[in-house]
Amino acid sequence: MEKQALQQLNQAVIAILKTARTHVLSAMGQTLTVAEKTSRKDLVTNVDRSNENFLVQQIRQLDPQAQILAEEGLGDQVTSMAGHVWIVDPIDGTMNFVHQRNHFAMMIGFYNDGIPTLGYIYDVMADKLYAGGPTLGVMLNDQLLPKPADTPLSGGLFGASGPLLIQDRYHMQTIAQESLGPRILGSAGVQISQVLAGELVGYLSYLRPWDFAAGRVLAESLGLVVSQVDGTPVNMLSSGAVLVATKSAQRAILTIVK
Amino acid sequence: MEKQALQQLNQAVIAILKTARTHVLSAMGQTLTVAEKTSRKDLVTNVDRSNENFLVQQIRQLDPQAQILAEEGLGDQVTSMAGHVWIVDPIDGTMNFVHQRNHFAMMIGFYNDGIPTLGYIYDVMADKLYAGGPTLGVMLNDQLLPKPADTPLSGGLFGASGPLLIQDRYHMQTIAQESLGPRILGSAGVQISQVLAGELVGYLSYLRPWDFAAGRVLAESLGLVVSQVDGTPVNMLSSGAVLVATKSAQRAILTIVK
Repeated sequence: MEKQALQQLNQAVIAILKTARTHVLSAMGQTLTVAEKTSRKDLVTNVDRSNENFLVQQIRQLDPQAQILAEEGLGDQVTSMAGHVWIVDPIDGTMNFVHQRNHFAMMIGFYNDGIPTLGYIYDVMADKLYAGGPTLGVMLNDQLLPKPADTPLSGGLFGASGPLLIQDRYHMQTIAQESLGPRILGSAGVQISQVLAGELVGYLSYLRPWDFAAGRVLAESLGLVVSQVDGTPVNMLSSGAVLVATKSAQRAILTIVK
Repeated sequence: MEKQALQQLNQAVIAILKTARTHVLSAMGQTLTVAEKTSRKDLVTNVDRSNENFLVQQIRQLDPQAQILAEEGLGDQVTSMAGHVWIVDPIDGTMNFVHQRNHFAMMIGFYNDGIPTLGYIYDVMADKLYAGGPTLGVMLNDQLLPKPADTPLSGGLFGASGPLLIQDRYHMQTIAQESLGPRILGSAGVQISQVLAGELVGYLSYLRPWDFAAGRVLAESLGLVVSQVDGTPVNMLSSGAVLVATKSAQRAILTIVK
């Protein structure tokens, strides 16, 4: 797509997200309806659903021919990355949203014939919006975000997943100990945004497409690498253990994992 | 101490901390000098030292007869909690300070004949100052902080320490799994402030006096409990595994630990 078309699309998505944020903040002032999906640690609320509904409708208006893959199922059944595909997480970190009223994100990724094109991670309470892509660069609110340094695993903090760290899946305890220490925040969006900002050298978790679709676009735009935990490419239509890291940290982590 | 005297002291300490914050932000724009204390994961910087020097001098002016216990050793050799004792951590979460330039805190606790009297946790980058004590109540910036609900361990998120979680010390993996999930932020000040705000139901870590002196004052003022991990009282002049939690979460955690 041409840069001018992308800029217009980008401005439109940012406007949608700002409106969505005001809706979410307003809904947080009222009683939440919380339901368990697969377990007491996997929640969905009325706000996840209402915000997904809003985002899907707005994207549909913006790009009527596109397919939309959204966490709570209010989008399309997407089985191919051909054409325009939008991947939406209305509330990433729902556990934090419910029990902290803080530290959660909205995320949108836009892929054009499978090519990562635009990404958005919006930390709602901090009012920090990471937005952009390979053509536009990555902005944090009104500031161009510089590429983070290629810090090695041993030289930085590592974004972990609680369950994977406790179970030592993928030798995550060794990875954490080789780093300067693990951090667990409970939101893929917030943790990936810390990798973008150079606050973490990597993040590894079991993720579904909407958990990393936006982050992949932004991370690759900044010279970071996104892969499955065995180093093979991610598939945007399936779930798996996904690693977002600096190039150097990825090398060290792949050596530990294999 | 009388309420009016405490209010004056409180206003003076808040003014000191605001000035200290501008110094720290300014120093962050220049090159940091970083040294290892006991290991590559235990750092000190020129800013820890310069900020401690500033805070100790300012407290000395404010309360010349007091003893001051400060992390980097620029205060007094304190061996008794008799009289006025100030306990100072100039930069809590030095690893985050160095490698994230974010997510660190200044902390000050004031004890009068051993009685927790005033506490301050200042999340520098978020510009969030938790301040107060049992007489004055606890303010978050200009807002009175309400007492957090007495949420049980199973109903909330748990603030963990990376090393203790990996080593499963004090059955921390079981504690984390009984909760809705572990969170690791790398700063006792930031994590205790999340317990104050009701974002975490508890926090357990191996702490030195300056890591929990401020947090103890604030937590107890809000109806939270602070104890050693075996449930016995903390000693402000020694280090140990310290638990800050809601009453309900503490009960559940003590049962798991013993």
